[in-house]
Amino acid sequence: MKKLIFTLSLLIITVTLLTAQKKIINLPDLPGYVTLKCDFHMHTVFSDGQVWPLNRVDEAIRDGLDVIAITDHLEYTPKKDFIPSDFNAAWKICETYAIERNLILVHGTEITRKMPPGHMNALFIKDASLIAKDSVWDNYEEAIKQGAFLQWNHPGWKAQEVDGIPKLYDMHKRLIKNGWLHGIEVFNDSDFYPLAFTICEQNNIALMGNSDVHAIISERYKDPEHRPMTLVFAKERSHDSLKEAMFAGRTMVYFDNNLAAKEEYAKPFFYQCISVGKPYFQNDKTIFFEVTNKSDVPFFLINGIKDAPASINLAANSVTRIAVSKKVTSSLVYDVSNVITGEKKVLRIELKY
Amino acid sequence: MKKLIFTLSLLIITVTLLTAQKKIINLPDLPGYVTLKCDFHMHTVFSDGQVWPLNRVDEAIRDGLDVIAITDHLEYTPKKDFIPSDFNAAWKICETYAIERNLILVHGTEITRKMPPGHMNALFIKDASLIAKDSVWDNYEEAIKQGAFLQWNHPGWKAQEVDGIPKLYDMHKRLIKNGWLHGIEVFNDSDFYPLAFTICEQNNIALMGNSDVHAIISERYKDPEHRPMTLVFAKERSHDSLKEAMFAGRTMVYFDNNLAAKEEYAKPFFYQCISVGKPYFQNDKTIFFEVTNKSDVPFFLINGIKDAPASINLAANSVTRIAVSKKVTSSLVYDVSNVITGEKKVLRIELKY
Amino acid sequence: MKKLIFTLSLLIITVTLLTAQKKIINLPDLPGYVTLKCDFHMHTVFSDGQVWPLNRVDEAIRDGLDVIAITDHLEYTPKKDFIPSDFNAAWKICETYAIERNLILVHGTEITRKMPPGHMNALFIKDASLIAKDSVWDNYEEAIKQGAFLQWNHPGWKAQEVDGIPKLYDMHKRLIKNGWLHGIEVFNDSDFYPLAFTICEQNNIALMGNSDVHAIISERYKDPEHRPMTLVFAKERSHDSLKEAMFAGRTMVYFDNNLAAKEEYAKPFFYQCISVGKPYFQNDKTIFFEVTNKSDVPFFLINGIKDAPASINLAANSVTRIAVSKKVTSSLVYDVSNVITGEKKVLRIELKY
Amino acid sequence: MKKLIFTLSLLIITVTLLTAQKKIINLPDLPGYVTLKCDFHMHTVFSDGQVWPLNRVDEAIRDGLDVIAITDHLEYTPKKDFIPSDFNAAWKICETYAIERNLILVHGTEITRKMPPGHMNALFIKDASLIAKDSVWDNYEEAIKQGAFLQWNHPGWKAQEVDGIPKLYDMHKRLIKNGWLHGIEVFNDSDFYPLAFTICEQNNIALMGNSDVHAIISERYKDPEHRPMTLVFAKERSHDSLKEAMFAGRTMVYFDNNLAAKEEYAKPFFYQCISVGKPYFQNDKTIFFEVTNKSDVPFFLINGIKDAPASINLAANSVTRIAVSKKVTSSLVYDVSNVITGEKKVLRIELKY
Repeated sequence: MKKLIFTLSLLIITVTLLTAQKKIINLPDLPGYVTLKCDFHMHTVFSDGQVWPLNRVDEAIRDGLDVIAITDHLEYTPKKDFIPSDFNAAWKICETYAIERNLILVHGTEITRKMPPGHMNALFIKDASLIAKDSVWDNYEEAIKQGAFLQWNHPGWKAQEVDGIPKLYDMHKRLIKNGWLHGIEVFNDSDFYPLAFTICEQNNIALMGNSDVHAIISERYKDPEHRPMTLVFAKERSHDSLKEAMFAGRTMVYFDNNLAAKEEYAKPFFYQCISVGKPYFQNDKTIFFEVTNKSDVPFFLINGIKDAPASINLAANSVTRIAVSKKVTSSLVYDVSNVITGEKKVLRIELKY
Repeated sequence: MKKLIFTLSLLIITVTLLTAQKKIINLPDLPGYVTLKCDFHMHTVFSDGQVWPLNRVDEAIRDGLDVIAITDHLEYTPKKDFIPSDFNAAWKICETYAIERNLILVHGTEITRKMPPGHMNALFIKDASLIAKDSVWDNYEEAIKQGAFLQWNHPGWKAQEVDGIPKLYDMHKRLIKNGWLHGIEVFNDSDFYPLAFTICEQNNIALMGNSDVHAIISERYKDPEHRPMTLVFAKERSHDSLKEAMFAGRTMVYFDNNLAAKEEYAKPFFYQCISVGKPYFQNDKTIFFEVTNKSDVPFFLINGIKDAPASINLAANSVTRIAVSKKVTSSLVYDVSNVITGEKKVLRIELKY
Repeated sequence: MKKLIFTLSLLIITVTLLTAQKKIINLPDLPGYVTLKCDFHMHTVFSDGQVWPLNRVDEAIRDGLDVIAITDHLEYTPKKDFIPSDFNAAWKICETYAIERNLILVHGTEITRKMPPGHMNALFIKDASLIAKDSVWDNYEEAIKQGAFLQWNHPGWKAQEVDGIPKLYDMHKRLIKNGWLHGIEVFNDSDFYPLAFTICEQNNIALMGNSDVHAIISERYKDPEHRPMTLVFAKERSHDSLKEAMFAGRTMVYFDNNLAAKEEYAKPFFYQCISVGKPYFQNDKTIFFEVTNKSDVPFFLINGIKDAPASINLAANSVTRIAVSKKVTSSLVYDVSNVITGEKKVLRIELKY
Repeated sequence: MKKLIFTLSLLIITVTLLTAQKKIINLPDLPGYVTLKCDFHMHTVFSDGQVWPLNRVDEAIRDGLDVIAITDHLEYTPKKDFIPSDFNAAWKICETYAIERNLILVHGTEITRKMPPGHMNALFIKDASLIAKDSVWDNYEEAIKQGAFLQWNHPGWKAQEVDGIPKLYDMHKRLIKNGWLHGIEVFNDSDFYPLAFTICEQNNIALMGNSDVHAIISERYKDPEHRPMTLVFAKERSHDSLKEAMFAGRTMVYFDNNLAAKEEYAKPFFYQCISVGKPYFQNDKTIFFEVTNKSDVPFFLINGIKDAPASINLAANSVTRIAVSKKVTSSLVYDVSNVITGEKKVLRIELKY
């Protein structure tokens, strides 16, 4: 009897130990850049979140992230009867803890206003308490003074825009004119805003995607799901390189099984994920070759050319066998339905075998 | 393309909605009693826990519990630089929220001292702030004055008892003599203290088992694992009946795949879990019948009699086919290795077919 | 080192043992009837299936079924170069094996023709080899002579009906006129044929739903998914009662999270699955009560009345809390979107609290 | 209603499509060699297995294997009443099917005798029917004549050796003397034979590990478990290179979370799996660095040196943070408890940072 009990107990402990480590996210680097996996939007008990700030660091490490920003609301602190306002609390609690765990922690806060202008994250700030001012424009001015990257959060959030469609109000135009609007969330939690794509393209703004988590990451995204994240193509894995890359707009958004990015990043990224093998066999009519997808992202290829398979699913971390008629001559062209490169555009790719 | 994206998103939302409900734990009632599933030991950001108190209510509901007590430490408040001490905070935050969700919330606190006497939960109290006193005996006296049920927590915790073996110190004997020690955790988190069984038996003390969770329940106990819990056999599902049952010692501890209880509760509980069918077939040598285990607890039967199967696993929520020699006459006797009825004793049962 | 290795090995064995048993499917009986869980359509290596017949019995037991029929094709035996035709092989191999495991095995075969009339299962036959005749009508005649229940399989199978819509051809009308068409699959594998519902209703034919599995059940339906099945409401759990109930049309189809049945069975079945508790709390505006769904089927309630929740998901094996305005007076009416009672009809139910 | 139903159905189909592909097993190549993942022992309905041969190919591809041998018994054909003996059936059925799927199929058979000499697989044969002879020695002679690699299966199988310990009988010594015993299973199904390690070392025999599957791979090894396999270090991915490597003894056995190999292969393999990062941070007392384990095998490091962590778990596909006292000077030495290099030996490794 004893033996059995201890076997069972042992098991639980072992599993716990093994899973409390940083998992490897299989997403490639781009030539000349390292791909940093980032989440720039999350909350703790210091605003309307449900956990202590250190949990956000632990969750990020387990998820394999390189970078997070904790962005508690300046203006919305529903727990203030029990927890006094300290807009830099999460930063103070996590700074050393994150360094010791090799996680890049970006100092941030959320400027939380009605639409317009809605919610805006100030990232790379120095002191959130100085940003807390009555006028929203004063908020922005102080943030910019501190060197902030301003990110417009969930621009079509239905609680603020009933039709779910992002709109550029005067305040946004003024920010853009000043060069103060650096990023827009095209994805937040579970909402995708295709129109934000166009706004970003037209105004040279970085595409962002974040979790905006308030509760527990592992309960919201059950393995093997993953939280939405912003991929940043940085010159190296450091706080400064990250910042440079973000202001330069070298980002991609990864949500569910989808990628969203400007084509200049989406295209090389796709080709870094996959490799096309030489044909390993042929018979009278058919040539057989394999496509290896060594990334965590499946690719759904559609709109195949004549005589080729109409669609192909390149499952994540898998090798897909492709049998193609000999009538086709060594190259297949497809749309990748889940690699979004514009408001109404997906990536078009070629498989040469 | 759009269609695909929205299909994926929809999926996640649906799953989330469906799993945020109270699951049914398949554990039977005893004749005349309702089995309340309880966890009397847990922490929040108001001491050294990681979550906001409401999360403990949400977790409990999802897990299908009937009762919880949030028991933040009186003497250990490592977050006090950010969160001022308020020993009744969790209670104030959760009281109405729990009522609206049909969860019985027991007002509690943890009196946190070196060994002896170690840690002690005071349950069914009225005001934790009055209990916070310098002398530990004054702590107990005030708790008792408020009508508390005193539970000795993890009595062999290795941080306080290097050999892991619970010991009755003078303070404990004095509590027992006064009739003030009402429960002892024979199981806490992942530690089992078989010796506590004997102390409980000799002194008419209730067996308790709790999670003592500080972090996230769903990360610590991954589905289909469950947190440790105390089963209380109450006359009805109410706060008062619960209290009566606990002082009367009608409890059972459920941890991993094990049950621990006095035989007077373990035996009828086992027979409520299973039913033995009439033989449905026989041939020259063998009789076939089925045992249905309609509970979430598997039962590991060992030490079978001659000519019978040496061991039988009655898997949870399953029907087990038993093929037995005709030499055996319509009854099998087994030890149930995972139903513990004493420090060195397991339940012995009979299957009549 | 040794210890570690043996711990790991042990684990695998334990898990295997525990999962190889008959699981309990939580589906209620109807008053006066026992609900038999059945799959009347499957294949083995004796036609175009991939497994040995005994595997079909093992799979069924693990899945918690009461009844199966193995229905290898009479006319399609692609493995005949290696396995000589024996139309009763699966029956001979499984008969005793099933009896010893308390599984009701129905002797069956599939009469496999082009459309019309398409594929037809003959169930409750005595000798499949006698049914193998050149003329399809002779097939039917011999089957009927043996007492068969004739089931029209996948009537809108796209390989035979490009538009996916079942059509009554002359042959079918002749069968119906003779009283020889006893069941139609409204669900097969992953295809639902709503129109078959109407044909069944107009001609007093039993609704059937089956897996038509050729490969491996556990690979096709990953836990917690389940294979499609026909629920038969029989007077008792026996071969003869099953047959009586099927000819009487007392069936329901259970596929994915859906039920399809005539309303006379769907309505009492729903009310056997759920129970509505008395309100446990109310405040100024709202009454709170719980609905317990003790079945494996979630129920998706939609089209709620004014002031009531627009939709409610009664998750499987769960308790759902309902908060309703006091303006509503103790009864809620909903459509159950996943309990299908006709070609274009779902069940309408009432929750009284 | 319709919408819901079709959403659900779609889901199932999508999942099925996505998982039916060749997964990538994360195991590195050795310098100069490609690591072929192989299973040289399995059965089908042509002896005592439960599936049609093509299923073995499908299972292997899904599992990411490069090579299989189907090895039905010559002497044990319990299904012969229904399936006539054809010792080359599996080969004939699978040959083209495997080629078209880029799986290397090795022609094999199992010579199935009482102990001594027990069961022996003949691999790389040309015609199994010629090997089926009365005398076991004649079996071997014919197999060798065909160029076979002879593998002694489960040498300590308890059905044949009650104590579970492999023993070299005269027949085995004779085979060894002739140079006819080329491989021994140190692992089969769930049994590990450490003593076989010594026999292999002393007689220059390849270590082998195989599933010996009779039933369904995915039911026996539930994701993320994997079947036991032999890793072969071949000069290239081809049938001939595989054969050369096996006769040269360049193999490793991968079972559960364990590796077993001669040290000359185990050591470079380990260092191909992991990479040690430069320290990323230090404080007064502690240096922090990361170890990346990009393989599917976790490594359990034990017996750490003074002032270093006593044990470290390098979880699979994860990055492990190591905090080490500055007293230690830039190198840690450990035993890897799950990389077995001899009957009583594990690999000793060094982490330089």
